[in-house]
Amino acid sequence: MRVLSVLLGITLAATFAHAATPQRSTDEIIKGTTAADWRRVDPKNVMLMDLPLGTVVIELAPQFAPAHVRNIETLTRDKYWDGLWIIRSHDNYVVQWGDPSEDLPGEVRKSTGSVTNKIPPEYERPLKGLKFDALKDADGWARKAGFVDGFQAASDGTSAWLTHCYGAIGVGRGNPPDSGDGSSLYVVIGQAPRNLDRNITVVGRVLKGMEYISAMPRGTGPLGFYEKPEQRTPLGPVRMASDDPSAPGYEVMRTDSKAFAEIAEGRRNRSDTWYVRPAGYTNICNISVPMRTVAK
Amino acid sequence: MRVLSVLLGITLAATFAHAATPQRSTDEIIKGTTAADWRRVDPKNVMLMDLPLGTVVIELAPQFAPAHVRNIETLTRDKYWDGLWIIRSHDNYVVQWGDPSEDLPGEVRKSTGSVTNKIPPEYERPLKGLKFDALKDADGWARKAGFVDGFQAASDGTSAWLTHCYGAIGVGRGNPPDSGDGSSLYVVIGQAPRNLDRNITVVGRVLKGMEYISAMPRGTGPLGFYEKPEQRTPLGPVRMASDDPSAPGYEVMRTDSKAFAEIAEGRRNRSDTWYVRPAGYTNICNISVPMRTVAK
Repeated sequence: MRVLSVLLGITLAATFAHAATPQRSTDEIIKGTTAADWRRVDPKNVMLMDLPLGTVVIELAPQFAPAHVRNIETLTRDKYWDGLWIIRSHDNYVVQWGDPSEDLPGEVRKSTGSVTNKIPPEYERPLKGLKFDALKDADGWARKAGFVDGFQAASDGTSAWLTHCYGAIGVGRGNPPDSGDGSSLYVVIGQAPRNLDRNITVVGRVLKGMEYISAMPRGTGPLGFYEKPEQRTPLGPVRMASDDPSAPGYEVMRTDSKAFAEIAEGRRNRSDTWYVRPAGYTNICNISVPMRTVAK
Repeated sequence: MRVLSVLLGITLAATFAHAATPQRSTDEIIKGTTAADWRRVDPKNVMLMDLPLGTVVIELAPQFAPAHVRNIETLTRDKYWDGLWIIRSHDNYVVQWGDPSEDLPGEVRKSTGSVTNKIPPEYERPLKGLKFDALKDADGWARKAGFVDGFQAASDGTSAWLTHCYGAIGVGRGNPPDSGDGSSLYVVIGQAPRNLDRNITVVGRVLKGMEYISAMPRGTGPLGFYEKPEQRTPLGPVRMASDDPSAPGYEVMRTDSKAFAEIAEGRRNRSDTWYVRPAGYTNICNISVPMRTVAK
């Protein structure tokens, strides 16, 4: 009798909890959105990179790294990437693409054409002028973590910077802080290496197609570089979406929408039946902002 | 003149910082260790799983999940895994192996022989009885994060549990909390899904060979399951190291050693010349405890 009461009590409590905060799946939330919940991505900031398995769709972030983004767009229009490769696949860290001869003694680096090779680092920028949607959860690496235009970001109250979460794209550089020019790019494929934040210029994030790049065979050389030329994956055509008549449009969910708040809360406290103990917490790198493909 | 002074001041400060805390690389720290800095892993707890690219070395954690580890060891000795496959590769989440027919309607599940299919969940255990080396850095997901016998772990002061960091191995289960028996295992390959902590039984971690499993082509079915049988990677011989005369010995760095404290501090505050801004923080899932292979 006592056991039954306890069980009944649990059942009622659970039913009540579900009734009070019915949790929808991300797909269901997305289905319930309206046009106002989405931001149309400017195709001028979208870079499309074909790989054997599919197209990687990248949104660049000129609001954080205007000079580097300008370089990357110029390199892309100048077809700099044609004939280059994925040159590095470092397990639990990054996949990198560009010109392998840059790091090889005695080899001549491919010309970057009209692009300036010396530009100042763009590791952070003033918070002022950005709409920073802060996550309520504490972030060990920064005073605040949150979202700017769908990009995972952090702030100390004065500056803001893009964070090294899964799918973040940064600019390879050597020891001098101004030695990155955008001609060698990496994407985070493992546990977020947030210690890189504000030590290197982050220029954007992968909106779509991470699975085409994250499973590249790991390189066996130091730092995951491929040791033999035949191990490198050639880059298919790389172009800006604004230059590609066949490219669709892309939209990113607004992080100040009710729909996004519901998604974040679902990450924080999963209430579907599988979970027995909601975490009560989430982290900026555990929430990817939804995107969708739309007619142009 | 003023500019020169400022520059000089920075240079001196940097030099002083390096002199006060000269930072060694992980390789240098490891080279300077003595035998007392390492724990010999009991070969009875080491599972070796051959994949096309190499051998994955797994340390099981009976101190956290004795019943599940017992099942896994029995399944391994009974050659349960022979003829089975990697069945799932879910981008930024997990790679899973076992019997695909378990999830397919109308198919008969492979017999698990003498193994009990109903065992209680082992999501957490009392902290008492464990040597928990706490990390000083705050952890958003738990009151404390730290290490137990080289495993990444967390605690609320009363219980302790293994955390879902990169390389952690858990037991697949259905909706009932006791529906995991150890015959379907997954390993974390992306950003730590710490929301799974205490919702599923974690049984160990990959000591070596993550790169042979993390780059499995992603599955295109729901949840990253492979859609066609030919996409699955067959498991090569799976055996316990204690049953394999050719297996070497394995050692894991003790997390209460000075050497490990130096590694953790290096993750927290990188002082090599590349870094312009040390993070001043690190996270349990950003520190993997070093292992090494030794003569048996």
